Amino acid sequence: MAGTLYGLGIGPGDPDLITLKALNILQAAPVIAYPAPVGKSSLARSIVEKHLPGGQDEIKIDTPMIPGDFPANDVYDQYSEEIAQKLAEGKDVAVLCEGDPFFFGSFMYIYARLADRFETRVVPGVSSAMASCCQLGVPITSRADVLTILPAPLPSEDLLERLQLCDAAIIMKVGRHFAKVRDVIGTLGLNEHAYYIEHATMETQKMMSLDEATFEKAPYFSMIIVHKRGEAWK
Amino acid sequence: MAGTLYGLGIGPGDPDLITLKALNILQAAPVIAYPAPVGKSSLARSIVEKHLPGGQDEIKIDTPMIPGDFPANDVYDQYSEEIAQKLAEGKDVAVLCEGDPFFFGSFMYIYARLADRFETRVVPGVSSAMASCCQLGVPITSRADVLTILPAPLPSEDLLERLQLCDAAIIMKVGRHFAKVRDVIGTLGLNEHAYYIEHATMETQKMMSLDEATFEKAPYFSMIIVHKRGEAWK
Repeated sequence: MAGTLYGLGIGPGDPDLITLKALNILQAAPVIAYPAPVGKSSLARSIVEKHLPGGQDEIKIDTPMIPGDFPANDVYDQYSEEIAQKLAEGKDVAVLCEGDPFFFGSFMYIYARLADRFETRVVPGVSSAMASCCQLGVPITSRADVLTILPAPLPSEDLLERLQLCDAAIIMKVGRHFAKVRDVIGTLGLNEHAYYIEHATMETQKMMSLDEATFEKAPYFSMIIVHKRGEAWK
Repeated sequence: MAGTLYGLGIGPGDPDLITLKALNILQAAPVIAYPAPVGKSSLARSIVEKHLPGGQDEIKIDTPMIPGDFPANDVYDQYSEEIAQKLAEGKDVAVLCEGDPFFFGSFMYIYARLADRFETRVVPGVSSAMASCCQLGVPITSRADVLTILPAPLPSEDLLERLQLCDAAIIMKVGRHFAKVRDVIGTLGLNEHAYYIEHATMETQKMMSLDEATFEKAPYFSMIIVHKRGEAWK
């Protein structure tokens, strides 16, 4: 009998924001796999480190981070085959995913290659988008609010158009696009209702109103939250 | 010393999709509070029932479900005062929230009334939106995809306009708006990439492609997922 492939959402960073379901699968799996930028350690593994029982096989998915060349198809081909071998040997494999597996998660590239061949279960996780709103104390959607999730790499005009057509927005992957995004929000006069957060729920978390964020660049795991209605939920 | 107010995301329905953090707070709190429609039992309480240690004070927040008259301000005034009394007695109070507390959660109405007066912590949870995509096997966002969360009660023309300006959409609170939403998706020719799910991750979960959903009404906790790019993530 072949093993089961699990895509495990492990949450946004605080190790205790993993679900019981993911924790149980994580600790029972004979093999775990996780992405890591080439030559660097894996954030996903560090998030679950305190929960690991020891003695598991580990597959580090070395991911080249070349802008514009993502996903690296040959890399996912190669690691999917390595995972497939373990599954074929009857071993369950748990692939760790920061946040939620299907919300901008690289697990989907393994899922695309293996879900037709092996029994696969995807365990949802707390996304950094939701966690950021909780950390900031900003109830993001109520009643009939429209929420849009925008990747910061989009061109300014696309960001602007979509920001006009929602009540709240979460702008992901801000990083080197920070100044551009801040400019767009300024153009729309929305600074007063905008917040910046990086490394949400991690020990390195920083957060502030967008007006206080006077720097020009931000880390990759950063977000801007815009709540156009302000405190209308009160 | 006053107690701490906790807003606890308890996840979408599967009791094991609660986080360790929420579980620990839930079991340690001397008082728990949860919403329930007037005269009915509480879904939130039933989700965590197996985790309850017994012997806790319980506050049932009887919520009138009158369309167009939500939130019921006098109800939240009254229960916030009841919770405030417990906090003033030095007892922590954990308010249970299906999914995530700040993502269409009624906790925000208590938060609005008490967060300025008492120490408050909001614990994010797995939202039903993310969980639905995992259950359906639909990776909802990759690369620079724009995701829009739409409440089904919006007028058809608003739904249509916003569906045209995103790559993927999650339409929440479908319920009695089901036929209207299906019509809008049909008008845009997006049926092929649309899915229906109700009671995601619960024992009563049902899911199917939108084409198979030939009924006219759906339960309140139902969703339609539209992934306009189809399997472009592969």
